[in-house]
Amino acid sequence: MNLSLLVNHALWTTFVAGFISVAYSVLLAFNVLSKPRGDKKMNDIADAIQEGAAAYMKKQYSVVAVIGIFIFAVLYFVFNPITAVGFAIGAVFSTIAGVVGMNIAVRSNIRTAQAAKKGLSSAFSLAFQGGSITGLMVGGLALLAVGGFYFLLSRSGTSSLQPLVALGFGGSLISVFARLGGGIFTKGADVGTDMVGKIEKGIPEDDPRNPGVIADLVGDNVGDDAGMAADLFETYVVTVVAAMILGKLTFGENLTVLFYPLLIGSISVAASIIGSWFVRVGKNIMGALYQGLGVSIIVALVGFYFLTNSAFPNGLNGISTINLFYTLAIGIAITVGMVIITEYFTSKKFGPVKAIANASTTGHGTNVIAGLAVSMKSTFAPILLIAAGILVSYNLAGLYGIALSAMSMLSLTGIIVAIDAFGPITDNAGGIAEMAGLDEKVRRVTDPLDAVGNTTKAITKAYAIGSAGLAALVLFASYTQELARGAKGVSAAFFSLSDPSVVVGLFIGGALPYLFGALAMEAVGKTAVSVVNEVRRQFKEIKGIMTGKAKPQYGKAVDIVTTAAIKQMIVPALIPVLAPILVGFLLGPKALGGLLVGSIVTGLFVAISMTTGGAAWDNTKKYIEEGNLGGKGSFAHQAAVTGDTVGDPYKDTAGPAINPMIKVLNIVALLIAPFLI
Amino acid sequence: MNLSLLVNHALWTTFVAGFISVAYSVLLAFNVLSKPRGDKKMNDIADAIQEGAAAYMKKQYSVVAVIGIFIFAVLYFVFNPITAVGFAIGAVFSTIAGVVGMNIAVRSNIRTAQAAKKGLSSAFSLAFQGGSITGLMVGGLALLAVGGFYFLLSRSGTSSLQPLVALGFGGSLISVFARLGGGIFTKGADVGTDMVGKIEKGIPEDDPRNPGVIADLVGDNVGDDAGMAADLFETYVVTVVAAMILGKLTFGENLTVLFYPLLIGSISVAASIIGSWFVRVGKNIMGALYQGLGVSIIVALVGFYFLTNSAFPNGLNGISTINLFYTLAIGIAITVGMVIITEYFTSKKFGPVKAIANASTTGHGTNVIAGLAVSMKSTFAPILLIAAGILVSYNLAGLYGIALSAMSMLSLTGIIVAIDAFGPITDNAGGIAEMAGLDEKVRRVTDPLDAVGNTTKAITKAYAIGSAGLAALVLFASYTQELARGAKGVSAAFFSLSDPSVVVGLFIGGALPYLFGALAMEAVGKTAVSVVNEVRRQFKEIKGIMTGKAKPQYGKAVDIVTTAAIKQMIVPALIPVLAPILVGFLLGPKALGGLLVGSIVTGLFVAISMTTGGAAWDNTKKYIEEGNLGGKGSFAHQAAVTGDTVGDPYKDTAGPAINPMIKVLNIVALLIAPFLI
Repeated sequence: MNLSLLVNHALWTTFVAGFISVAYSVLLAFNVLSKPRGDKKMNDIADAIQEGAAAYMKKQYSVVAVIGIFIFAVLYFVFNPITAVGFAIGAVFSTIAGVVGMNIAVRSNIRTAQAAKKGLSSAFSLAFQGGSITGLMVGGLALLAVGGFYFLLSRSGTSSLQPLVALGFGGSLISVFARLGGGIFTKGADVGTDMVGKIEKGIPEDDPRNPGVIADLVGDNVGDDAGMAADLFETYVVTVVAAMILGKLTFGENLTVLFYPLLIGSISVAASIIGSWFVRVGKNIMGALYQGLGVSIIVALVGFYFLTNSAFPNGLNGISTINLFYTLAIGIAITVGMVIITEYFTSKKFGPVKAIANASTTGHGTNVIAGLAVSMKSTFAPILLIAAGILVSYNLAGLYGIALSAMSMLSLTGIIVAIDAFGPITDNAGGIAEMAGLDEKVRRVTDPLDAVGNTTKAITKAYAIGSAGLAALVLFASYTQELARGAKGVSAAFFSLSDPSVVVGLFIGGALPYLFGALAMEAVGKTAVSVVNEVRRQFKEIKGIMTGKAKPQYGKAVDIVTTAAIKQMIVPALIPVLAPILVGFLLGPKALGGLLVGSIVTGLFVAISMTTGGAAWDNTKKYIEEGNLGGKGSFAHQAAVTGDTVGDPYKDTAGPAINPMIKVLNIVALLIAPFLI
Repeated sequence: MNLSLLVNHALWTTFVAGFISVAYSVLLAFNVLSKPRGDKKMNDIADAIQEGAAAYMKKQYSVVAVIGIFIFAVLYFVFNPITAVGFAIGAVFSTIAGVVGMNIAVRSNIRTAQAAKKGLSSAFSLAFQGGSITGLMVGGLALLAVGGFYFLLSRSGTSSLQPLVALGFGGSLISVFARLGGGIFTKGADVGTDMVGKIEKGIPEDDPRNPGVIADLVGDNVGDDAGMAADLFETYVVTVVAAMILGKLTFGENLTVLFYPLLIGSISVAASIIGSWFVRVGKNIMGALYQGLGVSIIVALVGFYFLTNSAFPNGLNGISTINLFYTLAIGIAITVGMVIITEYFTSKKFGPVKAIANASTTGHGTNVIAGLAVSMKSTFAPILLIAAGILVSYNLAGLYGIALSAMSMLSLTGIIVAIDAFGPITDNAGGIAEMAGLDEKVRRVTDPLDAVGNTTKAITKAYAIGSAGLAALVLFASYTQELARGAKGVSAAFFSLSDPSVVVGLFIGGALPYLFGALAMEAVGKTAVSVVNEVRRQFKEIKGIMTGKAKPQYGKAVDIVTTAAIKQMIVPALIPVLAPILVGFLLGPKALGGLLVGSIVTGLFVAISMTTGGAAWDNTKKYIEEGNLGGKGSFAHQAAVTGDTVGDPYKDTAGPAINPMIKVLNIVALLIAPFLI
């Protein structure tokens, strides 16, 4: 198979692939929207969720727009108009990804609840289609944004890739806000609602008597869906841009090198779509998802092989063709490894979750201790895997090899998001079923889907942060090369660990994920406390809520969470923008280099421990709810609810927000590099 | 004032200072032992604690001895006999420090309980004397060990400082075991006992009806006292050795440079003793302790000034005399800064503890979330402080300046340990009072002392880990110089962040404190679960425990904890010994260098967040128990007990053990460096 036609018309290939991805996604959306929405009660609930989510998103993006316009102006005047435009495009496309993710989710949930009446396979099929829409939209938009903006750049005669960096900046910055704002919303509402409902009142999750329940359901959509979509869009774009820039810095003006990452992405669009056809549920939901992922991987690998042979039949500057292909295979291998490790640590079938469950029988304290231990332990294997990936790719193809591994990893975003985003949809569907008083059996369909979703959500996050580590290293390499272009004194020795400036930079950089994570946790804690107080107030003041005679004021809780989330996302989100500027200009480019690497090192640990640990806690609760160790309502179950509560901001707020955060740090450093010498 | 006499006879000065420190400590011990032990009931309890502690220590050190003898043999054959002897001396002295710390504590506790009958000031005075004994013994032993072994070395004609490194290795390795074993014992017992006693049965802490109570009280002595003493001994020795080695590597054979760190330590012995005279309790216990610390600092600074002027009247290789002094002042400034920051985050008077307390009113989950947020946030200011210290010292006096700052920081060990070790003594005294049914007012004396002790314990740990960061950096610098001596290719560029081997090393090194911490947490969790089960069994099977008619089998619980702690300390303690050997020989010296720095970076964060966060949780519980937010038995109190439980292994097992662990990593690397090239 010779793909030279694709290679020779790489930009067109990219556009076509991006268009196919988006179009297929729209097609799926029409199919989902054609499905029945169920009875009036279900519709009322779904409408309330949809309104709450839309209102929150509008407010969130209004605030972000103000900050975005300010940064646009700074880029416009300090850099140049085209750089500012790049930033704007990145920001707008990231916003679109988030808005699409949310809108699909709030429309799929009710239809999934309705489909669940017919059984597992129809519910799963619908929810999976909902997830696929978001996944393919994210990948497609990323290809169109990067390819399209590059086309504009080359038309306008700009040869600098700085505007592309700005594109990544726009995407990442919006994504930090979306992850944080959405994350604070969803977990503030979730924690607060559960603490009064489950622990104090002893009523089930999503019980309509709970005044916080709509806020909780809204949260799933603005956090797990919109936030995740923006995050993965950002991750994809930044990885493509980083690979393109490093390619240019390493190999000079070589269009094949420049477009190679886009072509990898294009191949994977096809791979993701084909893979999605193989997700067919039998008894084993996880098995079905893995089947889809496996097919995507095989198709992608075959495509990569022929692509690489067509693009670089004689290798590239001494790197053999097969070595280039191997670096792509390594990216896939890291993905598979991350999936296996994360599943081990978060699935109900294996030791870690069972260990937390056993510790729950002795109380809240031992549950949390065991959970924290699992959370910390879960970082070891992924880090070794990433380290091995770095070493092997580097030995095969230098720094560019690392960039290619990252790109190959990220190219699978379409299918990875698809097998993730169905989770929150089924979670929401279960909530609607509970609130609308649907038959028990509906819940028995959505619950296992939700549990699998917990693991796949954790997998996506581990995947995102793992690839973020690689992509950030590539950005760091670009930063050093950018500095080296501008000044003579910058050589390999410039960033020596024997230099105290570098070590100080490492320390400060290492501190940033901790500070950022702390603020995110604090924000969730504060928001949850205000929800608890509001829910308690309603239970106390509105007589008859518990007997079902009076209706709670759901909207009040939504408003409280909205205000709290937006207020508290701003300060932490600005840390990664301001820290590199401060350190760069006060302590110099060496310390800034140290800061970048330091933030990657601790960022990986904080993020992986939080996302995996949180999912393990969540599934521990589900494991006990299945009837193990005393089942629902037992002492162990209460302890497990506490663990789940603690894990909530870990896995859905602080942890995942670190991925875009370290990218923003690195991108800002890359942008200011020319001014530092 | 001209101290040239001291400088010219530096080794004798060191011996005299070490001897004075030990002798004064013995003198204090006689005074403490002459105090009355109270009635028979108190004696029975204290004897049980003493027996349990002695039995545990014997078992712990027997196991450690086997490992120690194995390593001794390896050093003997792979290196040389004198290096093996250095290791043995370090190990033996560290053991002595631990044994002394434990023996003093188990004898001071009962006498403090008896003194508490007379009131706060007599109890405090006695407990503080107990703490001072350990503090001065640790500092004195460290000076005697290093000075004495150097004397033997020079007599035997050995000019290599490698045997001194081995001395540090012996001290650090024993200390890892002591911290881990003691830490798992104390917190396994504490968590397990509290979870059944306080949460399930609703009986107070240290209630004699609780079958785990003696194990809990034994734990305070083997963990907080013996473990801490071994840890600080190790920290002191390694810092002195690191400063001596770096001095020799930087300035060649210059005896004044070589002995300068020992003289700094000698000055500080006087400063610590004088400072301890100024600790007189009025209403404000913390104020009294700070007064003593303040006087020590002033005396030390004055001494350092004259010492430096006498030792280096014309500066040192271009470094001015005053700059050398300034680096010492920076070490003191970092200490003061760490004290202030830690007090802010852990004292009941300030925002962080109050925030956790407020979050407790809404339940277990929000308490833990708020505590984790405080824990992560508490790392930021200390890291900035350490970073600033590194930059300024380096600019004043190069790498040696960092070594001097570390040495000056550590020289205050005597007074710092004194104001720490009184805490566990009063904690134990309170336990004895409760168990012996002494008057309520005794407990009203020991409780506030215990609360202050929580903060000072956290301060000592922050101080130890902060200085460990500096000392480990000095060891890393020695490692790079050691490599550079042996091979030509090793220059500043060798450890470049642009080199993937270095980055991979950073990742792997960063993973070690996480893995180590996870295993330590897991060990405490498992031990606690077995204690819970045993305590529950006794409550169930032995009728009449709750009514006080039957006596619980305290010894059974002690045995269970002993076996569990010893079994579980071994694997994590071997990580820092084996990891550098594996990485050094498999991935090479570059990756090993990265590993060292990576472990320092994440080690600092993990350790500070754990020790400070744990103390904040503990004091939150005390704050509520004082009657705030509902007081004892309230919903908020239950949540605070959970937080305290989670904080236990954080602050007393995993967190503090990371300090010796990163030192062992660095020392092993330094020892194997010659074989890597």
